[in-house]
Amino acid sequence: MTETINDLPQVMLEGAKAARAASRTMGTLSAEKRVEALEAIARHLEAAKDDILSENKKDLDAAEDNGLDAPMVDRLRLDDERLGGIIQGVRDVAALDDPVGDVLAEWERPNGLKMSRIRVPLGVIGVIYESRPNVTVDASVLCLKSGNAVMLRPGSDSFHTSRRLVECVRAGLKEAGLPEGAVFMVPTTDRAAVGHLLSGLEGNLDVIVPRGGRSLVERVSQEARVPVIGHLEGICHVYVDKGADLEKAKAIVVNAKLRRTGVCGAAETILIDKARADELVPEIAGALIDAGCEVRGDETAQARHDGIVPATEEDWSTEYLAPIVSMRVVDGVRGAIDHISHYATGHTESILTEDEDTAEAFLREVDSAIIIHNASTQFADGGEFGMGAEIGISTGRIHARGPVGCEQLTTFKYVVRGDGQTRP
Amino acid sequence: MTETINDLPQVMLEGAKAARAASRTMGTLSAEKRVEALEAIARHLEAAKDDILSENKKDLDAAEDNGLDAPMVDRLRLDDERLGGIIQGVRDVAALDDPVGDVLAEWERPNGLKMSRIRVPLGVIGVIYESRPNVTVDASVLCLKSGNAVMLRPGSDSFHTSRRLVECVRAGLKEAGLPEGAVFMVPTTDRAAVGHLLSGLEGNLDVIVPRGGRSLVERVSQEARVPVIGHLEGICHVYVDKGADLEKAKAIVVNAKLRRTGVCGAAETILIDKARADELVPEIAGALIDAGCEVRGDETAQARHDGIVPATEEDWSTEYLAPIVSMRVVDGVRGAIDHISHYATGHTESILTEDEDTAEAFLREVDSAIIIHNASTQFADGGEFGMGAEIGISTGRIHARGPVGCEQLTTFKYVVRGDGQTRP
Repeated sequence: MTETINDLPQVMLEGAKAARAASRTMGTLSAEKRVEALEAIARHLEAAKDDILSENKKDLDAAEDNGLDAPMVDRLRLDDERLGGIIQGVRDVAALDDPVGDVLAEWERPNGLKMSRIRVPLGVIGVIYESRPNVTVDASVLCLKSGNAVMLRPGSDSFHTSRRLVECVRAGLKEAGLPEGAVFMVPTTDRAAVGHLLSGLEGNLDVIVPRGGRSLVERVSQEARVPVIGHLEGICHVYVDKGADLEKAKAIVVNAKLRRTGVCGAAETILIDKARADELVPEIAGALIDAGCEVRGDETAQARHDGIVPATEEDWSTEYLAPIVSMRVVDGVRGAIDHISHYATGHTESILTEDEDTAEAFLREVDSAIIIHNASTQFADGGEFGMGAEIGISTGRIHARGPVGCEQLTTFKYVVRGDGQTRP
Repeated sequence: MTETINDLPQVMLEGAKAARAASRTMGTLSAEKRVEALEAIARHLEAAKDDILSENKKDLDAAEDNGLDAPMVDRLRLDDERLGGIIQGVRDVAALDDPVGDVLAEWERPNGLKMSRIRVPLGVIGVIYESRPNVTVDASVLCLKSGNAVMLRPGSDSFHTSRRLVECVRAGLKEAGLPEGAVFMVPTTDRAAVGHLLSGLEGNLDVIVPRGGRSLVERVSQEARVPVIGHLEGICHVYVDKGADLEKAKAIVVNAKLRRTGVCGAAETILIDKARADELVPEIAGALIDAGCEVRGDETAQARHDGIVPATEEDWSTEYLAPIVSMRVVDGVRGAIDHISHYATGHTESILTEDEDTAEAFLREVDSAIIIHNASTQFADGGEFGMGAEIGISTGRIHARGPVGCEQLTTFKYVVRGDGQTRP
């Protein structure tokens, strides 16, 4: 479905300017006012439930006509329960600590200047995402809670649903006496809109959060004239050390790979310590295969278990997002760190061992956003971190690493209080 | 001067790979080891003083032949005293608190997972800068202190001096048993090298810090495939409120504009409260003019003092970096905030008033990196903030705002400690 808008550049620019103006208001509100707006949004979503579901039906019908595959249709589908979950999510975000205005540091200089570093919103955030209606609401309320304005570009398959959801969000803002321009949704499925977002809209957009497939994120990273917070791929590793507890290790590896295979925190490569490979390879590979997973191993692994099929060099760099895993035998924790430093994408890696010294070396030396000892990589999630909700996971090195929640959607400014100081 | 290198792309890529490898070592050293390296660097600089000055002489002679203007030659010139200052700067940075490994936050989840956020180095930092030899050393030691590796591209007029300085830095690293590859200087003045840095060198460069003229910074912002930390312009404002103390205000305005006119924290526009314009305009403009400054005012200002020449719309967006200032009469603090939100570049703004409520409104609502009450904008400097040294000032909104010191050259990772948890 494409609705063409003749003056799209103008519409986008006006939306961005309104978002910029609204962001100035949102960022200087009291925390109570932001909560009031989120509660009004939850009420408007509740009141419009039937309407939202009927718009969702339009999208689902079109998806069927377009031959969308089953997992994508499932992501798109809303029902009473899922919509209830989305609305509860709004209230959960409302209940989070307000991050804006926090004093992050305070100190005084010898000349009497009183310095402080204060948390402030990022400004206007662009979110480009897949056809998942829940993201429309999650991203809106996370941005609003942290005092930002947001420009949304949902996947085209969810256009009707998202448009109706955004109407509820804007109605809630209006009811709270706040500028509706704080949440703008691109009013067309025309892909040209993405280009306008990437161009930065004359300085009215501060950061872009891309979510979705590698091709989208690569395009955004290549073309964006504004900073990007996001991740390309999550090639997550689990290293099973000779000091591992076997039963824990089997349970964690199976969970890390198979709990959900389509999430970015799913494990893609299992590294096995050579010193205990004779036992660990058959046990771990066997548990994975029994659970329905294809295991692609290097020669050393293949030699230790019949069900393992051969891995190629490409496997070490592949994010399967499917019940397939690669397995390699490495020379202890040093070998694991070397493999990870070569192939990891900076997302999440886990070590399984009862040896504290080995674990600490891994935690210290591996440089990904999240490093885990004796637990599943699938904990790589804002909710599991206690952040309440997330807009995505960042594998970039600057500003935000790991789950991007309210706090990561803020920046800071310095406030300096003097009594007449001039600089010598 | 251009030294052409035939295989420049290869040389750059090898330098970047060596820097990446070195960064892994630098980031996991003890704080003591980093201090040891910086002290060795200071000793090597001391031992090579005569040699450095004779390389500097080569650059100065070439600068004369090339007709460089006096301020640029002055920036380029080293003498015994300046070199002593640079070496003292190395020891000052060595004495700073080590930022790496700080535990920024710790908490436990209901499932028993122990979460922590740990400060880690950014990785490999590219610095592109003007022909100022001190930056070669400052940038190197700030990056090393914070556990990073650095790739330097100094202005071509300082090529010989910078090359000799970098030899000392690398000799210090070697003496401390650390990889020399942690500091790489582009071995040619060929401008093509800048393009290679901007392309990101196959993921071996994590961030670029551009310093210098607007054209360089704009090129970097447009072309860089890696994140950029820096600033385009510092159009800094001083707003003189009706509640200002006149004597303080005159002293601060003159200092903010004229202490040094070539720094990014110098004031470029003075805003005067309409409610007291009859007194403030002649007093403030008079003080500036007496001190040798040209004042370009709007009509309201011109009508109140003879020496003010007319300003055009362009003046409000001009960074003079010279003894010229624009002056506009605005309608109180709201008028000042409106002007600033339109014309400021996000660097530093100051309000002069004895009225606390007015000051607090300004400090809260103005959204630049540094907001000051009753003091000069020329305090916008890492040293004045107590950071010890800075690699530049950032006007971007993400990662680092304001002075970029050691701490701003770091990022963080999450370390999660479990005892067998799988995600339900």
